[in-house]
Order: sequence, then C-alpha cells, then structure tokens
Amino acid sequence: MAQTIPVSPLALPMPELGVVRGIRLGAIAAGIRYKGRTDLVLAEMAPGTTVAGVFTKSKCPGAPVDWCRAILPKGEARALVVNAGNANVFTGQAGRKTCEATAEAAAKLADCSAENVYLASTGVIGEILPAERITSALPALHTALSENGWEDAARGIMTTDTFPKVAVRKATIKGTEVIIQGIAKGSGMIAPDMATMLAFVATDAKLPASVLQTLLSAGIQKTFNCITVDSDTSTSDMVLLFATGAAQNPDIVTTTDVLTDPELADFRTALNVVLHDLALLVIRDGEGITKLMSIKVSGAVSDQSAWRVAMAIGNSPLVKTAVAGEDANWGRVVMAVGKCGEPADRDTLSVSIGGVCIARNGTVVDGYDETPVVAHMKGQEIDIAVDLGLGTGIAQAWSCDLTHGYIDINGSYRS
Amino acid sequence: MAQTIPVSPLALPMPELGVVRGIRLGAIAAGIRYKGRTDLVLAEMAPGTTVAGVFTKSKCPGAPVDWCRAILPKGEARALVVNAGNANVFTGQAGRKTCEATAEAAAKLADCSAENVYLASTGVIGEILPAERITSALPALHTALSENGWEDAARGIMTTDTFPKVAVRKATIKGTEVIIQGIAKGSGMIAPDMATMLAFVATDAKLPASVLQTLLSAGIQKTFNCITVDSDTSTSDMVLLFATGAAQNPDIVTTTDVLTDPELADFRTALNVVLHDLALLVIRDGEGITKLMSIKVSGAVSDQSAWRVAMAIGNSPLVKTAVAGEDANWGRVVMAVGKCGEPADRDTLSVSIGGVCIARNGTVVDGYDETPVVAHMKGQEIDIAVDLGLGTGIAQAWSCDLTHGYIDINGSYRS
Repeated sequence: MAQTIPVSPLALPMPELGVVRGIRLGAIAAGIRYKGRTDLVLAEMAPGTTVAGVFTKSKCPGAPVDWCRAILPKGEARALVVNAGNANVFTGQAGRKTCEATAEAAAKLADCSAENVYLASTGVIGEILPAERITSALPALHTALSENGWEDAARGIMTTDTFPKVAVRKATIKGTEVIIQGIAKGSGMIAPDMATMLAFVATDAKLPASVLQTLLSAGIQKTFNCITVDSDTSTSDMVLLFATGAAQNPDIVTTTDVLTDPELADFRTALNVVLHDLALLVIRDGEGITKLMSIKVSGAVSDQSAWRVAMAIGNSPLVKTAVAGEDANWGRVVMAVGKCGEPADRDTLSVSIGGVCIARNGTVVDGYDETPVVAHMKGQEIDIAVDLGLGTGIAQAWSCDLTHGYIDINGSYRS
Repeated sequence: MAQTIPVSPLALPMPELGVVRGIRLGAIAAGIRYKGRTDLVLAEMAPGTTVAGVFTKSKCPGAPVDWCRAILPKGEARALVVNAGNANVFTGQAGRKTCEATAEAAAKLADCSAENVYLASTGVIGEILPAERITSALPALHTALSENGWEDAARGIMTTDTFPKVAVRKATIKGTEVIIQGIAKGSGMIAPDMATMLAFVATDAKLPASVLQTLLSAGIQKTFNCITVDSDTSTSDMVLLFATGAAQNPDIVTTTDVLTDPELADFRTALNVVLHDLALLVIRDGEGITKLMSIKVSGAVSDQSAWRVAMAIGNSPLVKTAVAGEDANWGRVVMAVGKCGEPADRDTLSVSIGGVCIARNGTVVDGYDETPVVAHMKGQEIDIAVDLGLGTGIAQAWSCDLTHGYIDINGSYRS
C-alpha cells in the first residue's frame, strides 16, 4: 500500500536539520514487511542520556510499549530500535521474546544494559515479529550510524505516511544554546493499522529525567493529545524525549515547579513548539486528507470540557465528510456539540467558520450570508470555532477531513 | 440527493402490513424541501390513545423534541405530524413558533387540544421551517387519511433512506389479539444530516401510558440503543409508541413489575421484536452500507461494559473500513477493545469472526487458517464476537461498513 499513496496535499517541506550532539542515527532495509525501503531504525545515545516517555492508554498495548514502560523509571537511554511494518501487538510470549532479543542485540552493540534500550514497533497487529530479521540487520546498521541520520530515521519509521516528519528548534538554558529535534510517524494519532503514532525527540540539553518527564507530559497535552484522524487510538502510540547532555549547560536545580521555572522557560517553549510541529505534521499526513481542520472551543465550563467538545467535533464523521465536500454545513457542528455529553446549552451556543459567526444564541445569525464561508471551505485549512457561552474553558484541536482516500487506504491495508 | 442513492443491497422487502384499529395515516407532498415526493405525514389517533416516547440525549435537541418532551407527561395522543427535509433544529424562537402553529392546525382538524399533537421533523439543521408549508397542506392531507396509509407514511418520512421501513407483529393480552406495527426512518440512529432516526409504533392494545413507557424504555435498550452507523447522535432522534385501545383487551392491572408481568409477556416479546426489526432495518439502510456487522461481546465485567465495547467496535472507522474491504483484519478489533476505556485484559481476550476463533489469551490461535474467515468476509452479514474473559457481561450491537458511498452521501448532503 504505502508506495501507491500520493503525497498528502498538506505536506510541508522538510526543515533544515540540525545535529543533536550525543546521538547518532541510521536506517536500513531489514525486509520486515516492505520491499525496497528502509524499515529498521537504530539510534545510539551518549552515556548519561536521560529519557522521558508517554505511551498509549490502550488496554491492549503492544509488547514494545510494555517494555518501554517497564524500563522508563531507570531514566537512562543508550539506544533506540524502531521497526516499521509489524507492530508486535497481540503477539503474546513470542512478542515479549522478540523485545528481549532485540534489546540484548542492541545493548551489545552500544555496550550498555538491555534496560537502557528503548523499543518501538509500528505496522500490522497480531502477526509474530521475527527477532532474527532485526538482530541480524543491527550490526551493519550500527556501523553506519551518523549524527546526520535524522532524515533517514524519519523515513525508516514510516508506514502509510506519505512524507517524513521532522521538527527542530533551538533554545537557551542559563545562557547555553541547546537544540531540540524530533521525528514522528503516523497518519493519525489514531490511524493506519493502529500501529500508528510514534515520535522521538532528542536534545543535547543536560536535564534530569524527572524534569524531562514533567515537561514532556505537560507538552503533549496541548499537542499530540489534541490531534485526531479517526478517533481510533493506537495500541502502540509513544513519544520519547532523550536529552544527551552534550550541550553542557549549567545544571538546573529544580527548586521551583519545572513547569514555571524561569530558567527553563525558553526550553519549555521550544520543546512545546517542536511537539506542536510534529503533531501537526502527523495530521497533515492524515490518511486521505485534503483539508486540515482547526477547531477552537471557548466558553466551556473547563478546559477539559472544551477539549472534549473540540475532539467530538474533530472526530465526527459527519463534520469530516462535510469538510471534505466543502459544504459549510454548520448544523453538523451543532450536532457534535450536542452529542458529546459535555455541559452545553443550545441557547447560548455560537458557531463560526472561517472567522464568520454563523449562529448565535441558538439560531442562525440574522441575514447570514454564506458566501465568505463557502469561499473559506474551498481552502486547505478550515477553521471552526465554537463558543459555548457557559464559562472560561478553552481548547484547540486539529483534525482532517474524511475522504475516499481514507476508505481506499484502510479497506486494503494488509493486502 | 435522496433520489440518486441506489437502494441498499441490505434492503428487505416490505412485510405484509396490518391495520391498527384506531389510527389513520397519510402523506402528501408539501414542498418543504424535496420536489416530486411526499414529505409531510399526518396520523390521527382515536380518543383515549395512550403514548410513550424516548428522545435523543443531545444537548442541542430540535424544537419538536422539546415539544414532545413537554406534552408527554399528559400521556394522551390524538395526532402525529412529521415532516422530512428540514429538522427544525437550532432555529430558536422561530422553530418554537412553527411547532405551536403546526400543533394548533392539526388539533383543529382532529378536534383535540394542541397538547395531544405529537411533532417530529427530520432533515437539514439550522434552516427555518416555514409553518405555512405544513399548515396549508394539512387539511387536504387530513381528508385522505386511511387505516391503510402505513406504507405512504413510511415513505413520507424518508430523507437519505433508500427504502421504507415497516415492522409488524401480533400478540395476545389476556386472550385478546392485538397488533403492533411501526415505521422508522434513518440511515443510522446516528446518521444522515443528524435529522436522522425517527420511529413510530402503534398498537390497538389498551394499555395505560405508564405501562407503555416502561415497556418502550426497556425495549429500546437492546434495539435502537444498540445500532450505530457513524457514532453521530442526532438532535432529533425519537421513538414514539401509541396504543389506541381499539382491541379492547381486558384492563391490565399492574400489580407486578411491568417488565416481568406474565399477562404482558406476549405483548412485551412482540413489541421488542418490532423494535428490533425496525432498528435493524435502519442499519440495513446505513449510509453507503454494503455489509451488516453483528457484534457480540461476552465475558465483560457487566452488560453495560459489554455494550460499550460492542459500540466501540461498531463505531471504529478502522474496523468499518476493514469490513468494507473484506479484510479479516482482526487486529483492528483488538485495537477498538483496547481504546474504549472499559475493563479489558489483553491476555484474556479472544476474538472470533464468522464463528472462527482467531485469537485467544493475547495471541493468535496456533495454526490459525484464515481461509474460512476470508470467505465469511465476502458475505453481506459479518459476525464479530469478542470474549473479554473477565466476567459474565454480554451485549450485542449492529453496525455497517464505512464505504465510498458514505463519503459521497455526506460530502454533499445539502447541495
């Protein structure tokens, strides 16, 4: 499938990549599922690299998710192995053994403990992932690792993705410049064959794992947790953040809250921008996408409630097909608000599309002229705004339209 | 749109219709939205007809839903007016005035109070529904009402429906034969332009409104509340049950629980079958349907939990597109179980398709042969069964596949 899908019309050009000192990467064609493309990625990190991670909430997580969750409390990472084409999910004891064998092989190459090796797999669920395919390819891959291997790595983790996804920003910590660079795959957080959304971010900053974890957990709330392609949560979702420490910035003494510490303000901002960029790149490659939807909700009883309303709009097949059809069918937005179970009052509800207020206080605006809204719907980026008129809760979410392309890709993913 | 959609391949022929003494129906072309087809339905019920109703849980309900909810406690119905093409939702004060004017016009014709007139509207949201179109058409419609008007009524309430939906059963109450007959519209409970799922059931049984309401509320739990086309809950969903009393069965003295009273056992069964038949007819006309999915969940911690798991599978775009593509991609069923937030344990989970157990206890069955499952996926009715291995909770739900037809219908519904 992957080769035949045209590049997303919402794709963005790759940014100019930097080097994250202390991490070397590469990709190789290991023949795991795909022919004639790379499908195995290895990254080796300098000793002392700290790590933070967030994982899928699925009750049926993949074996690599279990593996990473178990080793994360140690907080140190020396290697990362990612394969595409097979998610190693619902593979029982065989799946666990593949994780162990892969980690041990990578640990030998990186001269570290297997418990410092992070694993991720993406692709079909329920098929046994043969460890030998990976372990036999790792030595050659290891000799070719490079500080400039980021683009290769971004390509090597793709499944139904139509373009590689990289984001980069610089920040200063106590006067020392550091870099934050990451890659992601997924045509949805929430998408292809549930083997879905992976993102790996690295920085040369020197930061303890506990600080990284706090920043990452907070950062994903308004980025990766606010995107949806199809409401289907992956069994393999994972975002990992590595800090090699090579920038040798002065130590951060976290006497104050990590999320408000002014010494970390610039880094926090840059990290959140990288997470935002990667999350939006995933949506821009949403399966079958022709239009990017941005959904702003205000006036909710809480931010959490606003988020649920925004995601209900972003997940509604009827809203998504209307956007695909360039139909300014705002009634479907009303429907999505009404169905989602959050506090809402028809008679205080307002709906805008493309900045034009269409409905207010439970009915269409007097003399509503659809012309500018129709024009907006013909664009590639569709802005929907809802004010519930109840409180001060706000949220923003991003989704894509639901098109024939989505049906084509997912009706025959395994074939 | 409606005229150009081919008839659902899952359509069933109309059953042989009966007469429900005490109710006369008819339909007329009132020019509300569609050209050259009926779009206004009137039913007149004999004095003393009792009524029960269940309505959408949407926080943005249509004006007719508000109207019916307000008069339902009176428990008596003398007329029903339904229009297709405009849902009278999110229409503010104008929408309420249209309801009042319609009810008053019908009350005059039926010689009753406006508070005995039930109203329903289905179609586009957010457009003002002009009362005159309805009130000016009602007198001619009223003179043509007939005990044999059921098929006309079933056709008159259609929007994107591709076939009219009727179900009928007979039952005895204390030795007296009664009939239960109903009509429904909707290509989803949950579907077209949210103006969606309406069902009207009538019986000539003599039963108090309180008994009817208890039976109806219980009956929809395993019928209409277990179907989904696209997870989008209508602002206008409504099921009404009328009992004219014309069968003159002996009075039911509800000394025991209505839901266990042996005098009502036969009626309860027949009512539940009618509700089941109508609900399944709605799914069989799911927008773009090519395959009917039946989802059985067992081994859940409770029936409620089993229902949520079944609906998560039925609503998953990835499961639905796999079914459309005849792909026995059972990993997506695992994904849907995992994401839905209900208690589940990957390592006690079993999945069957077409009666073939594919995965058990967290991994694929040894020597799994996909051949019979592939053959099953080519059929029109797809059976998915999941056992969670945790408790005794069970549920069954019905859904349809997600196809190009759904995109076509909903990308241009208003045009």
